[in-house]
Amino acid sequence: METFKVTFYPDNKSIRVNNDTSILSAAISAGVHINSVCAGEGVCGRCKVIVKKGKVLAQPTGMLSVEEKNKGVCLACITTIHSDLEIEIPPQSRLEEKISQQDERFKGLYSESEEIEPVKGPQAKETKAYSPLTAKLYLELPKPDLKDRLSDLERIYRQISRTKGIPCPQTGLANIRQLGELLRDADWKITVTLGKREAQTELILIEPQDTSSKNFGFCFDIGTTTISGQLVDLKNKKVLGTRAIYNRQAAFGSDVISRIIYAQEESGLEKLHLAVAECVNQIIHELAQEHKVDLNNVTGIVCTGNTTMMHLLLSIDPTYIRREPYVPVANFLPVMRAAEAGIKINPRGLLYCASGVSSYIGADATAGVLSCGLDKEKDLCLLIDIGTNGEIVLGNRDFLIAASASAGPAFEGSGVTCGMRASRGAIQKIKISRRVFQVAYSTIGQEKPRGICGSGYIDALAQMLSSGLMDKSGKLSEKESANIRQNAYGRYFVVAGKKESAIKEDIIITEADIENLKRAKAAIYSAVSILVRHIGMKFDDIKKVFISGGFGTYLDFGNAVNIGLLPDLDSSRFVFVGNSSLAGARAMLLSDEAIKKAEEIAAKITYFELSVEPDYMDEYMAALFFPHTDLTKFPSFKLKP
Amino acid sequence: METFKVTFYPDNKSIRVNNDTSILSAAISAGVHINSVCAGEGVCGRCKVIVKKGKVLAQPTGMLSVEEKNKGVCLACITTIHSDLEIEIPPQSRLEEKISQQDERFKGLYSESEEIEPVKGPQAKETKAYSPLTAKLYLELPKPDLKDRLSDLERIYRQISRTKGIPCPQTGLANIRQLGELLRDADWKITVTLGKREAQTELILIEPQDTSSKNFGFCFDIGTTTISGQLVDLKNKKVLGTRAIYNRQAAFGSDVISRIIYAQEESGLEKLHLAVAECVNQIIHELAQEHKVDLNNVTGIVCTGNTTMMHLLLSIDPTYIRREPYVPVANFLPVMRAAEAGIKINPRGLLYCASGVSSYIGADATAGVLSCGLDKEKDLCLLIDIGTNGEIVLGNRDFLIAASASAGPAFEGSGVTCGMRASRGAIQKIKISRRVFQVAYSTIGQEKPRGICGSGYIDALAQMLSSGLMDKSGKLSEKESANIRQNAYGRYFVVAGKKESAIKEDIIITEADIENLKRAKAAIYSAVSILVRHIGMKFDDIKKVFISGGFGTYLDFGNAVNIGLLPDLDSSRFVFVGNSSLAGARAMLLSDEAIKKAEEIAAKITYFELSVEPDYMDEYMAALFFPHTDLTKFPSFKLKP
Repeated sequence: METFKVTFYPDNKSIRVNNDTSILSAAISAGVHINSVCAGEGVCGRCKVIVKKGKVLAQPTGMLSVEEKNKGVCLACITTIHSDLEIEIPPQSRLEEKISQQDERFKGLYSESEEIEPVKGPQAKETKAYSPLTAKLYLELPKPDLKDRLSDLERIYRQISRTKGIPCPQTGLANIRQLGELLRDADWKITVTLGKREAQTELILIEPQDTSSKNFGFCFDIGTTTISGQLVDLKNKKVLGTRAIYNRQAAFGSDVISRIIYAQEESGLEKLHLAVAECVNQIIHELAQEHKVDLNNVTGIVCTGNTTMMHLLLSIDPTYIRREPYVPVANFLPVMRAAEAGIKINPRGLLYCASGVSSYIGADATAGVLSCGLDKEKDLCLLIDIGTNGEIVLGNRDFLIAASASAGPAFEGSGVTCGMRASRGAIQKIKISRRVFQVAYSTIGQEKPRGICGSGYIDALAQMLSSGLMDKSGKLSEKESANIRQNAYGRYFVVAGKKESAIKEDIIITEADIENLKRAKAAIYSAVSILVRHIGMKFDDIKKVFISGGFGTYLDFGNAVNIGLLPDLDSSRFVFVGNSSLAGARAMLLSDEAIKKAEEIAAKITYFELSVEPDYMDEYMAALFFPHTDLTKFPSFKLKP
Repeated sequence: METFKVTFYPDNKSIRVNNDTSILSAAISAGVHINSVCAGEGVCGRCKVIVKKGKVLAQPTGMLSVEEKNKGVCLACITTIHSDLEIEIPPQSRLEEKISQQDERFKGLYSESEEIEPVKGPQAKETKAYSPLTAKLYLELPKPDLKDRLSDLERIYRQISRTKGIPCPQTGLANIRQLGELLRDADWKITVTLGKREAQTELILIEPQDTSSKNFGFCFDIGTTTISGQLVDLKNKKVLGTRAIYNRQAAFGSDVISRIIYAQEESGLEKLHLAVAECVNQIIHELAQEHKVDLNNVTGIVCTGNTTMMHLLLSIDPTYIRREPYVPVANFLPVMRAAEAGIKINPRGLLYCASGVSSYIGADATAGVLSCGLDKEKDLCLLIDIGTNGEIVLGNRDFLIAASASAGPAFEGSGVTCGMRASRGAIQKIKISRRVFQVAYSTIGQEKPRGICGSGYIDALAQMLSSGLMDKSGKLSEKESANIRQNAYGRYFVVAGKKESAIKEDIIITEADIENLKRAKAAIYSAVSILVRHIGMKFDDIKKVFISGGFGTYLDFGNAVNIGLLPDLDSSRFVFVGNSSLAGARAMLLSDEAIKKAEEIAAKITYFELSVEPDYMDEYMAALFFPHTDLTKFPSFKLKP
């Protein structure tokens, strides 16, 4: 078969592929990551690339303008390779972006170096002695003599017991094999790494001399759309850095269902597993390099994420998650070596995957409850995790009930024309003047805008609605305006013009985008609404609403209420907790008490299946307006007079 | 470099080796096992081979007769290869021999199929519910439905808990990965294999349908000279078969010290490890084949052996065992996968290595005490394990003290001219008529004699002594006799002439052999003597003496006392227990109570170092006579009047 060389810029990565291969496939093989939401079906229009040189064959599409076509732009997924090629990937089609590390406003969420408490809120009081997933302990062993002939291994066990009061742990043959020489070369001064494996303590590593100051871990929130990770100094309980990237699995579908379907294709599961493992390894590699951490000193990882993400991370077939009666393979996973999941840290380092509740309430919900302390509250509280798979937990110290809403990735900046994550260059705050409809915005990092993140969309929708530029159903005004324009696909609103944008194109919100965002907010609002009603309560009974999600640091509760994303409660009842799943994972990395607590939470949460609730569809349909069809539910909402 | 093809017969195995390679090295590489006791130093004369064709270069040796040299016989270790060769290995130089399986007299020790109790003697009463190292359990799981949505893994855990009351066990990712499909394909009918890993229960395997009747294990006694193994049906608590072969490590030295030294050579440890792993795998393979057992249904192994053997089995550097203060790397070893030690059973099958006491009191002693129930006795008892490394344990339910004596392999039939193990064709019983010195003997399996095993040597020495053919110092009579002859190397006694022997040579006992046997018996007797005196007791205070060793089923206590191997006590106090180490290993394979008990025993035994005892050398020297210099210690001994 004829093969061609394809080179991708600006990566400057080349690969040889067979004739008739799609550009998207070639990019995946080359390790070049192109945005794709529809799993290569040519419908999302996110995988635009520019063919600089060479011959391609493109399927017809309505997603490209004539101007774009003339420039050589094509959709990577439906364009096949028929000669050697040079391809440029424009910024908006790239899958990786770094979270800004310098921005002052990221402090507390995505900062460079952040002091943290093992468990926030009510849990903190309960945390006993500091006991992370993996701990290093420096030991000076008494040398053996004719009166003290304990074997090398039991000598270490004895010293651990004397120092820490931990009974005889288990260990692997690899450690035992190197022990005799290591102990004597090190003159009986060693550092042991102890790890938690269920009820037992494992002696994971034995190193010569005192290396106890070099012990690091990672916590991860594996989201359907976004993967966030933090490098944590386990010795000093300090977060050294945070990174987030888009989940490369997006190339195989934007939601968990399409990925489960893809997993059933030949080597589909393997590809999905590799995609997520690569993301995790990329974050680990970048943060370790930046903070000069040797990967051999990374000894433990805690991961959270929804149940499908946990299955794919571990290469467990997720098929039965979407087949009645919707049973996952495992909610409680054993502690294992990170290497078993293809994660590259110390080969003997441990991986703990937090416990989930059911097929659609995952470990991310458990971790969220843990980190915001919902299970300790006396009053009725609510946790809303606004993600691709929105998870809602309602309860207090007496009970916990959870539901899941498939919101889609719009609020994470995916599946919308100019969406992006809350990272450098994202428009996160928007104000539209009522008289001349002038748009004022601010971006993360005060850079030229590259796109719009979730909080920016919430502001934009609320401002367009209150200023009359958008009606309750989401249609843009037909009044002539400098900001509202029309092309072949419909009307759109220009947030920032091409001259001021970093991508040299208008940054816009289309009516299709508004539709996407509306569905997302409706899914979340109606889930919350049904769940509260299911337990016989009213919104007003909820004393505190924890809002979690990848919104950077900024979220305007008033605007979120006004578009009907959040129930109409006073702003004082809302608490924005950032990525609560990641915070929970970090708590578990730092404390075995937190792990125990999280497992109790997972066992305690009752799963409430929305789809079988007769009212759910009605409620959802009623919420497909801004803010709602029934305005008595939003008494504080006022349209422009 | 020039290479040559060497073919070994009767194996008909060929290998290409470099010019100047020794025949012994070539044989090891070809997987042909030649006897060698002196680790290739040309001094033991055990590795005789016949060069049928080709050119070799042999170092001078006094170990070969002119007749042998004319026949092309040479010592494999000091003869190098200088052309293509054809080599025949005569029966007496072969390392592998099968234990007779048919012999009636083997019943209870090396029988084909033998009913066994998990723990013999006093222990048996304590054994609670049957709980082997690895157990299979058939489960019919309730199918999940919308009301019972427990995940697949927790569904299994729940059923195990309901059936057996065992709390949530741990399991490996490999099992979890296959679970979803396996459960549904098997219509929720599965067999789980549960294994003991310290305090926890591991879910080792999950198989579709009911395979609970197919669960097998092996127990092994890894001796310095002999490796014995048994295939056990774990479902039916039945021994299916027993095999013993010489330890192939013998090619690298006959005792533990020479092997520890060899382990320090380049890839020495690896070679020693491979040698023992090959032996274990050979026994496993042969017994499994014979009893039509699929190796995937072999799920557990328990090994005992002295501390050096345990180190080498697991490829742990034994260097520090022989360096002051004589500390092993580990006495208590974690349960691991057998595959980690290179043992070929089910890849997820478990290996438990029994716990030892110190560098020179190994897991074999612990297992021996367990199987004969010494630790439960009210009265003072003694266990003498007559092996290459003789181990002696003295005590009762209140205390246990042990010493080790380096006896050498003579009583195992190694290092003596016509010695062999207690297997088919071995002369095991000898009587010499007092008047005409006529020799009557019987062999194992009633076959033509191939050599003499330990019990045969004990009989021969006792009979030669009482008939006056041998004096107290071990010199053979100078009287002319049909049985006593002389060659260039000294006098020797003919037990069976070449016409009646299976090897077409005289089966003889030389004065050098007698010297070897004398040193072995002196080492054991003096160790027992010093140990008993050390605790302020006399032989007469010992109520029961358990004798353990590879003697087949026959051991004449009277003769053993008369040559001064055993103390002069009434025969009624002696109990022959066969291979007590193997019996202990079997008990541990069949019962976790026995494992717990053995670990308690290992922790309880006090090690007594003979070599630092000032009287030990005197006692040993005094015992270098038959039966002893001080005949008051052997009042029942009478020389021929």
